[in-house]
Amino acid sequence: MKFSEVSAVLPSGPGGFTAEVDARWTIAGKPNGGYLLAMLGRAAAGVAAHPDVLTASACYLRAPEPGPVAIEAEVLREGRSATQVRARMSQEAKGCVEALLTLGRLDPDAKPYWQAGLPEAPSVSRERCVRLPVPDSFPVAIMRQIEVRLEPDSLRFAEGAPSGRGELRGWLSLPDDEPFDPVSLLFALDAFPPATFDVAMSGWVPTLEFTTYVRAVPAPGPVRVLHRAQLIQDRRVDEACFVWDSAGHLVAQSTQLAAIRLG
Amino acid sequence: MKFSEVSAVLPSGPGGFTAEVDARWTIAGKPNGGYLLAMLGRAAAGVAAHPDVLTASACYLRAPEPGPVAIEAEVLREGRSATQVRARMSQEAKGCVEALLTLGRLDPDAKPYWQAGLPEAPSVSRERCVRLPVPDSFPVAIMRQIEVRLEPDSLRFAEGAPSGRGELRGWLSLPDDEPFDPVSLLFALDAFPPATFDVAMSGWVPTLEFTTYVRAVPAPGPVRVLHRAQLIQDRRVDEACFVWDSAGHLVAQSTQLAAIRLG
Repeated sequence: MKFSEVSAVLPSGPGGFTAEVDARWTIAGKPNGGYLLAMLGRAAAGVAAHPDVLTASACYLRAPEPGPVAIEAEVLREGRSATQVRARMSQEAKGCVEALLTLGRLDPDAKPYWQAGLPEAPSVSRERCVRLPVPDSFPVAIMRQIEVRLEPDSLRFAEGAPSGRGELRGWLSLPDDEPFDPVSLLFALDAFPPATFDVAMSGWVPTLEFTTYVRAVPAPGPVRVLHRAQLIQDRRVDEACFVWDSAGHLVAQSTQLAAIRLG
Repeated sequence: MKFSEVSAVLPSGPGGFTAEVDARWTIAGKPNGGYLLAMLGRAAAGVAAHPDVLTASACYLRAPEPGPVAIEAEVLREGRSATQVRARMSQEAKGCVEALLTLGRLDPDAKPYWQAGLPEAPSVSRERCVRLPVPDSFPVAIMRQIEVRLEPDSLRFAEGAPSGRGELRGWLSLPDDEPFDPVSLLFALDAFPPATFDVAMSGWVPTLEFTTYVRAVPAPGPVRVLHRAQLIQDRRVDEACFVWDSAGHLVAQSTQLAAIRLG
């Protein structure tokens, strides 16, 4: 099933939406956080005067079970060039995810005016990258939906020998090669395994805060992703993610702070 | 007046606080955004089971006038190691700032376990840095409260000749050299001029989204700050900020997306 279908939201009243969390977009039974954020993005776009999600900052409260969820989206301020929205997903009246979003209008013809200090996009071709194996021991249902292909050098964690660089590079595509849009980029920013897997296998790395910026309308085709860890300290890690479209433009970026059993 | 005083919040009921926005902590009459976020941080700490702000993501709706504001802080979830809080500042019943915060416990003895790709801390001594001049043409009252000292190389924008690197490096101290705490670090992350001033003088650069992570309890003394722009595109720019304490440890970091009249 296409991402646009599994992330669809249905209006159910003023600012209210219903949606269905798909059991196939889960890791060990828990829905992917970027997938849930994309649903909030669609709800926010449904109430805002501006069409495109520019920023979304999420606070994950508890993972919903696959099945029906309710979403409320409230316009906090409508300005000339941006609308600010609070959106909240709940299940059986319990809050699951809350996010603050900014919506505006992305110019489909925008080009970089100035840049500095950004990482290089992954350079190994998609063909030479390797599809991430689905472990038998751990049910990662989502990996049967999306195609994550990692550079051979980024796959060392899967053999128990992380490189120590804390960096995963590769390609991502959606089911049926559906083109990305600004909302599905929110998912793309959370589609890769934790970058810390390339430092040490630490088990689960639960997100404390996740902030995403959409920088451009993506060209059709698979996207390139760079996910990297920066500082592990006091049992927390910050990770940054960058997404480039098939034309080589940086289209989305994110940061997250996560808890980790290291440091 | 000390920062802890001008950013203090007073309980006024369950989850409710009052505070006074100080007219001296303004730029052209508008309160500094990091100063307002610090107030939300203090309110969040007032309702949370955990003492230290770890993350704060802010959505700026409208600038309050100097004077009284109301703050509401609501615990969204209390977990074993973290409390998640929504906080909202309003003035005359109009929303000014809304933020999602995560609180936890910072280990005062934490050391970096692993790091990669982080920028170097500014290396020019505080004495060799130059106090940011207060322009006569533009009232930047806050610059009479804090001391921002920039490396000579970061001051070229003040002479109308930005370096083009999009990077400001220097030192920051609070009134009376008050030691920083995790909440005043939220302010430190927004104390420097826009990093884009070192690209081109573009006028006002209003923040669309501001996300802060506090990584450690700061040692007493002034902090070093690096504020840098990354990508200007489609009339928006992302900026990253890093703060190191006097012992040289990275203690806070942030990203923001802002609107800019370039690109």
